[in-house]
Amino acid sequence: MTSFAFHLDYTDPTSRARLGRFETPHGVVETPIFMPVGTRGTVKGIWPDELREMGAKMILANTYHLALRPGESVVKDLGGLHAFMNWQGPILTDSGGYQVFSLAELRQMDRDRVVFKSHVDGSMFDLTPARAVQIQEDLGADVIMCLDECPPHDAPAEKMQAAVDRTTRWAALCRDAQKRPDQALFGILQGGTDQAMRERSAEGLLPLDFPGYAIGGLSVGEAPADMYSTLDFTVPLLPEHKPRYLMGVGRPIDIIEAVLRGVDMFDCVMPTRNARNATAFTSHGLVKMRNLRYQRDTRPLDANCNCPTCQQFSRGYLRHLFQVEEMLGAQALTVHNLAYYQQVMRDLRAAIKSNSAQEFRLDHLARMTADP
Amino acid sequence: MTSFAFHLDYTDPTSRARLGRFETPHGVVETPIFMPVGTRGTVKGIWPDELREMGAKMILANTYHLALRPGESVVKDLGGLHAFMNWQGPILTDSGGYQVFSLAELRQMDRDRVVFKSHVDGSMFDLTPARAVQIQEDLGADVIMCLDECPPHDAPAEKMQAAVDRTTRWAALCRDAQKRPDQALFGILQGGTDQAMRERSAEGLLPLDFPGYAIGGLSVGEAPADMYSTLDFTVPLLPEHKPRYLMGVGRPIDIIEAVLRGVDMFDCVMPTRNARNATAFTSHGLVKMRNLRYQRDTRPLDANCNCPTCQQFSRGYLRHLFQVEEMLGAQALTVHNLAYYQQVMRDLRAAIKSNSAQEFRLDHLARMTADP
Ligand SMILES: [Zn+2]
Ligand SMILES: [Zn+2]
Repeated sequence: MTSFAFHLDYTDPTSRARLGRFETPHGVVETPIFMPVGTRGTVKGIWPDELREMGAKMILANTYHLALRPGESVVKDLGGLHAFMNWQGPILTDSGGYQVFSLAELRQMDRDRVVFKSHVDGSMFDLTPARAVQIQEDLGADVIMCLDECPPHDAPAEKMQAAVDRTTRWAALCRDAQKRPDQALFGILQGGTDQAMRERSAEGLLPLDFPGYAIGGLSVGEAPADMYSTLDFTVPLLPEHKPRYLMGVGRPIDIIEAVLRGVDMFDCVMPTRNARNATAFTSHGLVKMRNLRYQRDTRPLDANCNCPTCQQFSRGYLRHLFQVEEMLGAQALTVHNLAYYQQVMRDLRAAIKSNSAQEFRLDHLARMTADP
Repeated sequence: MTSFAFHLDYTDPTSRARLGRFETPHGVVETPIFMPVGTRGTVKGIWPDELREMGAKMILANTYHLALRPGESVVKDLGGLHAFMNWQGPILTDSGGYQVFSLAELRQMDRDRVVFKSHVDGSMFDLTPARAVQIQEDLGADVIMCLDECPPHDAPAEKMQAAVDRTTRWAALCRDAQKRPDQALFGILQGGTDQAMRERSAEGLLPLDFPGYAIGGLSVGEAPADMYSTLDFTVPLLPEHKPRYLMGVGRPIDIIEAVLRGVDMFDCVMPTRNARNATAFTSHGLVKMRNLRYQRDTRPLDANCNCPTCQQFSRGYLRHLFQVEEMLGAQALTVHNLAYYQQVMRDLRAAIKSNSAQEFRLDHLARMTADP
């Protein structure tokens, strides 16, 4: 664990926002940070150097998907995730828990074991906390996650509490299973939108002294306002001098709201998935690229963006690419959307530094209502 | 037409191979040249700068597809093909004739008009030689093609002769219809694999004095040996000091054989289409990327290739990308296959220059039987 450190450089006096630097074996990243998602060991449609050029510093890959295909031993034999993907920067892998409970067909869950059917080929898969750690050690990311149980946001209280307690027990088992000293194992808080549950989760996990903590179980169907209010009482439960990671969030406004509440790290498939569905995030709001109004539009997608897409292509050309279902459409919008997210994070960090994070939030909200 | 010139720099004393420079309004290209195909105004999966970096100098786009979607007036309004695609080098558009006779449902063909049903939405489309030129003038490529009729390679003699004569008549109508002085309009020889037909085609077209000539009606199902023997008697029919373009060819060996017979320009979907089907062209033959033997193979796809794919990814990773149907697999193999074609052309030009084109052909054949 000697390769890891989290330096808190600045705290916004007007909010809980903070600026930090997270040191990992594959480099230092500035926080708040957004991590593009490379589910199966590739950020869909993007070359690693395109990610680097847009300023992405750290990416995420999914343990569940990679364990099923190609299997963690293949990734290990091919040199681990960094060599596999040709990504030299830090990588985070989730534990697979979220996918087990959302994608797979659960067959059996006892105290410390989940047996599920692969959504790919129906084969049986047996997951324990120790196995989740072993898979992630073979994959070789810089940050790995404890196996957690993520219940639906509207699960009844007893089910929510059982998930919190199971997640705490599993976290201890994950910590005990960890062998590699060069990976930071993060704990994951569960507890939905209930304050007592979140407190119970923090009480169980903080004594385990993880080098970082994630907030799981949000952005799973609850209203944004409920997510924000949950962050209001959950983030202060976490250690000040350790990175805080909000899993699977979100829209730019969600990220801004969470940063103002003290979160440091984010990942989400939204910029990449929306890109493939012809929806662009821009400095003036969402653009539905297939709209006929763009057919003869020679303007760039976003005049305020200097990504390769906005530097090279017109809206009319991008629309054409989607209309004829050409791959380059998805590629170009993915590059733009991820570049836009990186730009939001850079601007947000600058705003925190200049004590204007609140103004940044208001300015962002005002822009989103404008007509692109 | 003042922007065009074809300089013959060198002729191989041991074959009909030649080195040339073809000047166009968007730059000079060295011949023999291979043009990647961007059917709908995009070389599938590839950014324009990736094409430039691999050494591609001139590309092809398909009139038929672009006329249907987005329509040539949209391309024109978006600044013409060069601005539309963000490709600053020379572009060639075919006439659409080949697709009309292969993809569309023909409804009516009279002396100087083809009425067909779009394969996209079933709408009726009315094509004449003048209309084919007008569409290509709106698209704005550097080299445009006369509308031709391309019959099946085994068409009976009377049908073949009718196609030759119609193609000749249409060529004259195309020439008369041409308004833009900054596009080179090439004539297209038809006549299948029959020497008398090819002579008849040349006799009809040469008096029209086009700035370049294409050989159509090959690589449409006939055996490679029949294509080569057809080139043996067809290429010498063409003017020495004008570029010669063999349409839709082909495998690297077909290109080499044709260059040795005096052809200067080529296009083919094979490198890009095969890439999407997980088949790579390498310096040691075809590689079927999905093969299990590559699962844990840490070697680059082609140790002799310096393309981004071979510099960055292992065979094991490329196999994984195809197994899980990730876009980056098709992107990476497309970059490699096109880079490989460009490398073959560079090596072939160097071989011609050093009077070793025949040895280059034998060396290529010997490599293709090796085990990758
Ligand atoms: Zn952009
Ligand atoms: Zn290569």
